[in-house]
Amino acid sequence: MSTDNLHFHKHRVSRELKETRNNHKSRVIWFTGLSGSGKSTVANATEKLLHDRGLQTYILDGDNVRMGLNKDLGFSPQDRTENIRRITEVAKLFADSGSIVLTAFISPYREDRNSARQIISDKDFIEVFVSADLSVCESRDPKGLYKKARAGEIKGFTGIDAPYEEPNKPELVVETDKYDILECANQVVDYLVEKNIIK
Amino acid sequence: MSTDNLHFHKHRVSRELKETRNNHKSRVIWFTGLSGSGKSTVANATEKLLHDRGLQTYILDGDNVRMGLNKDLGFSPQDRTENIRRITEVAKLFADSGSIVLTAFISPYREDRNSARQIISDKDFIEVFVSADLSVCESRDPKGLYKKARAGEIKGFTGIDAPYEEPNKPELVVETDKYDILECANQVVDYLVEKNIIK
Repeated sequence: MSTDNLHFHKHRVSRELKETRNNHKSRVIWFTGLSGSGKSTVANATEKLLHDRGLQTYILDGDNVRMGLNKDLGFSPQDRTENIRRITEVAKLFADSGSIVLTAFISPYREDRNSARQIISDKDFIEVFVSADLSVCESRDPKGLYKKARAGEIKGFTGIDAPYEEPNKPELVVETDKYDILECANQVVDYLVEKNIIK
Repeated sequence: MSTDNLHFHKHRVSRELKETRNNHKSRVIWFTGLSGSGKSTVANATEKLLHDRGLQTYILDGDNVRMGLNKDLGFSPQDRTENIRRITEVAKLFADSGSIVLTAFISPYREDRNSARQIISDKDFIEVFVSADLSVCESRDPKGLYKKARAGEIKGFTGIDAPYEEPNKPELVVETDKYDILECANQVVDYLVEKNIIK
């Protein structure tokens, strides 16, 4: 029995080596906007374009976070903040793994998004405001949530009886009430090319 | 303004497509064992071997989880369970992203590890018991924690005054008190090849 064999150097495979393997930089693309603005749809379309270019990508959204990691959280302001904090930390891990990770959450509070930017680092954080007029989002109402909020069946619904604080200086704004989804997704890809994040 | 442009099909890039891109299956390799058993060292050595083969990998361990995602948690039994639950959910996301993710946590409770297996799915979960005699771990004491635990300065320390429940049926046992780190890491790689997870 040897007590010395843990002296093997604990050598971490660095983020830089993973980025080199993947042939692109890793970043967090943070989509924010009202319910029905098209965050998740634009994020999925963007991921498809990036994957088709051979890049390593992942999406974090309600579909894979709310029923798993954050299933213990509700929709109170405190729980929304903790929801965003955990998503932030997970997105940071994905960026560290060499991925381009796309997050699609309403994330209505400026303070929470700024905190996400600080935790992830300004360099790695790309805030994309998915902009559409409330009336447009409400007319889309893909999950019937605005209707329920207007009827008072859902309390604290963003845009109705809870605030949405628009980003002051997002890296990018995509207007889903003016451009179609694929155009919006291409605007995101163009941004990544322009910034030399992808080739 | 169009209200119809969200009818773009929300097409997710599937895990299968990501696995195809990466040219290997994605799995969670769950290292468990006493403090000082060599979990993190074996995990890092394993990751190095996998990365050198061109695979997409990531490690979750105390270094990147305890000060980030789980910084609100302590070491009570409840907090340890929540610690493992969150790590489980994050590991599941990484597997879904096409990665081989290696987790290195003491994870002393059988129930927590079984819960991890259920959440992640039996197919995707590879439990690796990093085995070393307590006396060996204590003599290594890389962080001086056993000494503090013996002196009563740390309470609830696994192996001293808190239990470590050995796995009943781990997929693999690596004995760091009999083999050196690189041999142990190669045993993990050999297992992955044997099971056709990697080539």
